[in-house]
Amino acid sequence: MSDPQTAIDAATAAERDPRIHERTAGERQEGIPFVGAGPGDPGLLTVTGKELVEAADLVVHAGSLVNSELLATYCADAEQVSSIGKDLEELVPLMAGAYEAGRSVVRLHSGDPAVYGAALEQMDALEHDGVPTYLVPGVTAAFAASASLRTQLTLNGVANHVAFTRPQGTTLDPSDDHIDEFVGMGDVTTCIYLGTHAIAETMDRLLAGGHDPETPVTVVYHASWPDEDIIEGTIATIGNRIEAAGYRASALVIIGDAARKAGYERSYLYGEWANRTAADGESND
Amino acid sequence: MSDPQTAIDAATAAERDPRIHERTAGERQEGIPFVGAGPGDPGLLTVTGKELVEAADLVVHAGSLVNSELLATYCADAEQVSSIGKDLEELVPLMAGAYEAGRSVVRLHSGDPAVYGAALEQMDALEHDGVPTYLVPGVTAAFAASASLRTQLTLNGVANHVAFTRPQGTTLDPSDDHIDEFVGMGDVTTCIYLGTHAIAETMDRLLAGGHDPETPVTVVYHASWPDEDIIEGTIATIGNRIEAAGYRASALVIIGDAARKAGYERSYLYGEWANRTAADGESND
Repeated sequence: MSDPQTAIDAATAAERDPRIHERTAGERQEGIPFVGAGPGDPGLLTVTGKELVEAADLVVHAGSLVNSELLATYCADAEQVSSIGKDLEELVPLMAGAYEAGRSVVRLHSGDPAVYGAALEQMDALEHDGVPTYLVPGVTAAFAASASLRTQLTLNGVANHVAFTRPQGTTLDPSDDHIDEFVGMGDVTTCIYLGTHAIAETMDRLLAGGHDPETPVTVVYHASWPDEDIIEGTIATIGNRIEAAGYRASALVIIGDAARKAGYERSYLYGEWANRTAADGESND
Repeated sequence: MSDPQTAIDAATAAERDPRIHERTAGERQEGIPFVGAGPGDPGLLTVTGKELVEAADLVVHAGSLVNSELLATYCADAEQVSSIGKDLEELVPLMAGAYEAGRSVVRLHSGDPAVYGAALEQMDALEHDGVPTYLVPGVTAAFAASASLRTQLTLNGVANHVAFTRPQGTTLDPSDDHIDEFVGMGDVTTCIYLGTHAIAETMDRLLAGGHDPETPVTVVYHASWPDEDIIEGTIATIGNRIEAAGYRASALVIIGDAARKAGYERSYLYGEWANRTAADGESND
């Protein structure tokens, strides 16, 4: 196998991949699909993802980040390998070897691979070794959390925008931590991924930044899993509540009123405002 | 039917709905499901969404925002009603009447209902009239666009955060337009929904705000549809290119380097950095 960083540099220096214009997301392609498993519930995998996993001989999955019920439901007969603890130098030959031996290989990432996934470096390394790959999108945890909370992340008169972010830590410099800015905008639903272990520190920084201690914070542990748990609080209280619950990972932290469904206004999509929608050119209905 | 705004006010003033703690996203519930149809490709609907639509007697869908191929594939035999041009006073009795007559009703929204959907006001009006409802999440257009572009919206050393936003216009005051701020952060992938008609004005504002004219802008029209089209440019050039292409709706605008997959670094998830991951407590793999 070639050096992974060499493969990345080659891929990013190259011209645009012609498949970008020839293929669409959701379309079956030659190669190893990198499939978003969705938030956890087997029913929240996409139809295409399910069919690919069902037909797989080898499923390399994200260990405990993917619900074992999903694996048991769709690919009990396939060889299953957890990627946890395996480095790129181990994973790439494993997948390439199986693919080249004619086996049907699926790489299963949690949620959607576009959000805090690490699919691309594996894909580039495989492509560099002559193994084609492609992406199949999935449902991210924030959408499952929003559905469980029976709300929307954007809500007329409450939240006009959504941010997917992560807190400062080993992989993010303090200067690249924008949670303070997102919350400061006042109409952004701030969804913090990969931050369960750092909720108290994150809230302390928001308090030090002068944000309203009463700002609602909603934590959804294992959204859509059988042991899903929802803990509500504020910037001032949520740290202690999560510490008491003992969660250190696998929870999504949502800052803002939208998670509470508080005080929204009827949209312009319906009723007497319908004519104004046309002026906007489109809507998401 | 009761007044919709009264229903909204009653819903938001009430205590938390006990179903929030009793049910999880993806779980079948009593009532009318509000299903995210995904970006367009029928295979990018969730398994649960497909099963619900297949079993439906009446599907109220978002008209041309939902791929007709999806409706033809999964619910050709159901009664299909487009919500376009119908106000809440028409839609709510239509759905409530069918549900109370014992018919299986599904409300199909495009993408995921949490992002610029208008599901909640319909749900509150139905609940106020005694018809239970629930949400089934879906894949949003930005994830399909990212998959078509063979990239990730977050990318090590390139983009640490993602914003889902919309430009100022009839439904958003200029003071609530944060595109300038998101782009200014430098490491945010800014995904603009509902802004196809306003790309030129949006880019002009960014130029006036002093942003680098060479900043990449990627427009994905009809992500995952058979007529998907990808147009690439910069803050300086994309306006003219989209005008030449003639798109006025149904495209996602992505500002930032991640859409180009430019210059990313190998993540800490694999290889010699594996030990540092543990210090972060979790990863999305």
